[in-house]
Amino acid sequence: MTTLFTNVTALLMDEAFTTLRYGYVAVDGTNISYVGPNRPQGDFDQTIDCTGKVMMPGFVNCHTHVPMTLMRGYGGGHDLQSWLSDFIFPAEDKWDDRSIAAAAQLGLAEMIASGVTCIADMYMRMGVVARQVLDAGISANLSVGGVYFGSLADFSPDSCEDCANMRALYEQWHMAGDGQIIVDASIHGEYTSSAPLWQWMADYALEHGLGMHVHVSETMKEHEECKARHNGLTPIQILNRYGVWDTRAIAAHCVYTTPEDWAVMGQKGVSCIHNPYSNLKLGSGVAPIPAMSKAGVNVALGTDGVSSHNSVDLFADMKLAAILHNGVARDPMAVTARQALEMATVNGAKALGRNTGRIEAGRTADLILVDFDAPNLTPCHDEAENLVFSAHGSNVCMNMARGKVIYQNGEFKTLDLDRVKAEVKQYALPLLFK
Amino acid sequence: MTTLFTNVTALLMDEAFTTLRYGYVAVDGTNISYVGPNRPQGDFDQTIDCTGKVMMPGFVNCHTHVPMTLMRGYGGGHDLQSWLSDFIFPAEDKWDDRSIAAAAQLGLAEMIASGVTCIADMYMRMGVVARQVLDAGISANLSVGGVYFGSLADFSPDSCEDCANMRALYEQWHMAGDGQIIVDASIHGEYTSSAPLWQWMADYALEHGLGMHVHVSETMKEHEECKARHNGLTPIQILNRYGVWDTRAIAAHCVYTTPEDWAVMGQKGVSCIHNPYSNLKLGSGVAPIPAMSKAGVNVALGTDGVSSHNSVDLFADMKLAAILHNGVARDPMAVTARQALEMATVNGAKALGRNTGRIEAGRTADLILVDFDAPNLTPCHDEAENLVFSAHGSNVCMNMARGKVIYQNGEFKTLDLDRVKAEVKQYALPLLFK
Repeated sequence: MTTLFTNVTALLMDEAFTTLRYGYVAVDGTNISYVGPNRPQGDFDQTIDCTGKVMMPGFVNCHTHVPMTLMRGYGGGHDLQSWLSDFIFPAEDKWDDRSIAAAAQLGLAEMIASGVTCIADMYMRMGVVARQVLDAGISANLSVGGVYFGSLADFSPDSCEDCANMRALYEQWHMAGDGQIIVDASIHGEYTSSAPLWQWMADYALEHGLGMHVHVSETMKEHEECKARHNGLTPIQILNRYGVWDTRAIAAHCVYTTPEDWAVMGQKGVSCIHNPYSNLKLGSGVAPIPAMSKAGVNVALGTDGVSSHNSVDLFADMKLAAILHNGVARDPMAVTARQALEMATVNGAKALGRNTGRIEAGRTADLILVDFDAPNLTPCHDEAENLVFSAHGSNVCMNMARGKVIYQNGEFKTLDLDRVKAEVKQYALPLLFK
Repeated sequence: MTTLFTNVTALLMDEAFTTLRYGYVAVDGTNISYVGPNRPQGDFDQTIDCTGKVMMPGFVNCHTHVPMTLMRGYGGGHDLQSWLSDFIFPAEDKWDDRSIAAAAQLGLAEMIASGVTCIADMYMRMGVVARQVLDAGISANLSVGGVYFGSLADFSPDSCEDCANMRALYEQWHMAGDGQIIVDASIHGEYTSSAPLWQWMADYALEHGLGMHVHVSETMKEHEECKARHNGLTPIQILNRYGVWDTRAIAAHCVYTTPEDWAVMGQKGVSCIHNPYSNLKLGSGVAPIPAMSKAGVNVALGTDGVSSHNSVDLFADMKLAAILHNGVARDPMAVTARQALEMATVNGAKALGRNTGRIEAGRTADLILVDFDAPNLTPCHDEAENLVFSAHGSNVCMNMARGKVIYQNGEFKTLDLDRVKAEVKQYALPLLFK
């Protein structure tokens, strides 16, 4: 399958932050084959005119729990502990494969319609999620957050459920769809697991060349209790002792990380996944993003689960990342529009070890078109400013993932949204919430 | 003209925070005539089925500068002073009536499409803006921010341009369209004007029964310099000495207001207009909203001008108001969904002296429908949670202002958007920016 985009205005997200104008972008198979001012030779299976639209790389949403889409707004208006123990955990106990599949499809539909082409998802029953991702067409780094909390004496890799989950997901799904699925190792968090699992997971990741996905220092309580347990060592520091960061790794939240943590993260190449909506909504705090960036940490963006956002529109997170730190630091330049765009694209690609996030020949053809004829994008003095501060997910009029148009002008090409909504309503919601 | 809404699910925004279900809402002329469970007697000119939708009062956007829509994203990436002096002020010098009209129509279109039915706008050439508002169909409190900065000796109400603007706007437009337009008195801010104007404007407002619209303590610099000039008195306090708050009044921003200020505001009935996006984006800071609310100050919401947001989607401001203070205070209950909804509706109505913001018989028929079939609003465990945290402006599928449907399913009934965009492109943008 080949595609030629004509009359292209595009933010290439290259080092020079180039905006291509009156240009062409060609796609061959799953990759971009040409980007430039001249119409490339040859015939194309389809041609897409981009007049009035702006192209950018599809978003990389680096921290999600897709099936939690079904908990959108559930238990709102309660404090964190009641919300988890009285609402979220009891519902989560009732999942089966069929309901997870429906929930994942619904979540993927919302992401696709708002311009996401690649995610890092951590949850349970992830084989089922992998199947839905493959069918939907985007790319995903998938993991089951390990929660073994026992002693070394009790730990047995052969009987530990977390190890079994890790092995099963890796063996069945790693690199499925020519790398559409990448399986990551994962520890849910320092506060929900213990050292034997950390060591095993670090070893497993190294042995199989996998990345690592961990919740880190999301709340002050988590951060301080870790230090109390481990002679003043933070989650980043204690996990570092077990080799958890000796591979490509993403640390979600990092709200309470310290300069010492950032030094470890910079040295080991651990990316911070900033989830500004979730951190504000749950009352977790404001992550020190400008300082982390200056310290050399790669910062990317995530929405977190729909249960704590309650949306997956990464445009909103990109905008919030671009303004929140300005307000808190009283510095209108604390995070620039360009930096926010990088967090949502190239930095995310780097965090997940993906050849995406930038529009250049040889990269994966993950591309979105945004309708700049919409009133909220009129006028346009600067495409980047409008994309960061004025656009929202519903301005996305095309989503191409891995070279295939999966969404166009409100229509899903790989999902039957009406069928998904019926399955959610008739099967999944009654199962979980009744 | 009469309208009957059937199969209504509606957030009434009454004291009991009632959600009407399987109900009816009837409209006669500009007002709501019935709200309840039974189909009202009689024939109606039109019937609107609300199945799959949720009704709420139209948004009240209490601090806007509508023509600044043309500066969307203009001069982004510069510090505040360069942005104002090198970009905004030079462009503003070039306005004429024709370009203001086009800019206002574009701004109104964006607001209408995202559910706003009433605004408080402060800018220049406001007679032209009034004409556009009347035609567009929403309600507006309009004012010209006074900026006289001279001494009492030099001040003459007969020759002062600010006094002339005030009188002209009042005499031509106050209560136009049966109260669709309300003219407010206005002082741009303490830092951009001086005592003779404060006294004159306070007297004029009292004499004519007008409200008052002022920028207050937006930045630390403004707040501290005021105290230095006036023996420690804050903007709220020094303006209080001149009687500026002796009428219904709105104070935009209030980022650095103090408990002493809140006592004055509570006593005088001054509303705080919270503009969270603008305050973050410009690096102004975070207004102490939970404390102000607890102190008895009426808090409503504004988007501020598109130049410092850069959108007028009040759903986004409502969500940010509901989460920002949670994050800053590390308290997930600092502002609840209900409080954010009240800020965007009833509190705004109170701030502007409008009989809107609530769905009950006798109130102005300012009503919006939100499409709850959209993927980002599926599933729905709680309508209020979804409206605050999951909805955005493009989920609005109908806007009724003053009893008239002015927007439905993407179509504007009172504005020709293509013509407006052409006028902006061909006339207004070249005039201001070339």
